[in-house]
Amino acid sequence: MNTRPIGIFDSGVGGLTVVKEIFRTLPFEEIVYLGDTARLPYGTKSPETIRRFSLENVEFLMRFKVKMIIVACNTASSTSLDILRDKYKIPIIGVIKPGVVKATTITRNNRIGVIGTYATIKSRAYEKEIKALSKDILVFSQACPMFVPLVEEGWVNGDITLRITKKYLSKLISKHIDTLILGCTHYPLLRPVISKIIGQDVKIVDSASSVAEEAHNILTALGALRKSSKTPNHRFFATDAVENFVKIGERFLGSKIKRVERADYV
Amino acid sequence: MNTRPIGIFDSGVGGLTVVKEIFRTLPFEEIVYLGDTARLPYGTKSPETIRRFSLENVEFLMRFKVKMIIVACNTASSTSLDILRDKYKIPIIGVIKPGVVKATTITRNNRIGVIGTYATIKSRAYEKEIKALSKDILVFSQACPMFVPLVEEGWVNGDITLRITKKYLSKLISKHIDTLILGCTHYPLLRPVISKIIGQDVKIVDSASSVAEEAHNILTALGALRKSSKTPNHRFFATDAVENFVKIGERFLGSKIKRVERADYV
Repeated sequence: MNTRPIGIFDSGVGGLTVVKEIFRTLPFEEIVYLGDTARLPYGTKSPETIRRFSLENVEFLMRFKVKMIIVACNTASSTSLDILRDKYKIPIIGVIKPGVVKATTITRNNRIGVIGTYATIKSRAYEKEIKALSKDILVFSQACPMFVPLVEEGWVNGDITLRITKKYLSKLISKHIDTLILGCTHYPLLRPVISKIIGQDVKIVDSASSVAEEAHNILTALGALRKSSKTPNHRFFATDAVENFVKIGERFLGSKIKRVERADYV
Repeated sequence: MNTRPIGIFDSGVGGLTVVKEIFRTLPFEEIVYLGDTARLPYGTKSPETIRRFSLENVEFLMRFKVKMIIVACNTASSTSLDILRDKYKIPIIGVIKPGVVKATTITRNNRIGVIGTYATIKSRAYEKEIKALSKDILVFSQACPMFVPLVEEGWVNGDITLRITKKYLSKLISKHIDTLILGCTHYPLLRPVISKIIGQDVKIVDSASSVAEEAHNILTALGALRKSSKTPNHRFFATDAVENFVKIGERFLGSKIKRVERADYV
């Protein structure tokens, strides 16, 4: 089991922020990454469609005999974890819970804000996870559907981005939150402008690093960590043409992507 | 043949602007509309993926024995018409050429602007069609990828929309065009703000009405117009959940949508 790779999927390149943290936390592990770029975004679509796509994505990753699945997409995590766990025996982790654990530990005034896609916010997945940990915490949520297109267009600062951010966050500001969860893997790229608008004193939580820790904990508990110090042979797949994936993906991964392969099932 | 419906597809609800014009121009014709809402948008994806999706969409519409296909999506029209015409015997019309014919007729200074998605602009489909009609016309193109999310978010006016429009159109303004083609079925909803920025003296062409005229001409030539004055029984299909389709779709159609069915092939 321990030499098998970890399978990670996202609707696109956003999940590469999780891969980046896995590289740091678990440098010997081998990754098979899948970005469903032909059908992105997921955040504006219905739970039933997102679940169907998630099942197909995991089915593809299972071809590589992965030992664990990381759902590195908040929208898919908020809608599809149950159905995936019902179907597959290997551990499946999402990006919601690790972020929630971190945020509930950090908050001092018990007022947490959550931003994400329409589908994520509508699912109330963050709210449910937070309430399960502590009934005393108040959660304030806001969908920010323009954030993904902004990041994909590369407009991560400047006047227009500042105004859109202000428009989305104005309600959260009035709620006096002290912690804000970035509930979408695209949002860390907007972190500077989000922090500027929400206030430097509000702590910002993104899930990527917490997920890597959770993956580490689970693999350790199962005795399934890869011991080999042989350089892992990571593989990256996309359902749409691979050129676009490389171009935008490197911004998320923070390093070079040598080769991307076309996943053939879409 | 003449009692058979017309099949129309788009990546989402934008093509309903074409349906609206068909209702006006060809009130006796029956429509089967398909919005590929599970996989939208097309405009940021690769030609090969768009072609694959287009083929699947037409295959679905063929189940209804349609007598004509209208590709009511500029991105799909700019990439997939040839492959569709190779495969199917019925007439297949797109939204590029009708808009081009109109624009080349209207222009006085032979300087035409085109705005559209990344995929449409990159395909140079408008440029090629215009050059085929007249070598003297200069074409200036600009991709405006934030326009679709703006429309879907319902931000069709206001300060943010004005600034984004200004940012995209500033280069076109410096080219002194006298005619601007809206090369995406979402853009007519931004027409007021686009007109304000580009200048009231620049004539704006959207394809929807020209396409309806072309459909009329072809069906007339083939003797395939529906003669029955029985109320047509239009059908609307979406590949994602149908609720979202109705909500946004009515804005594009400009009238009520009674019922949308789930297309099951995605």
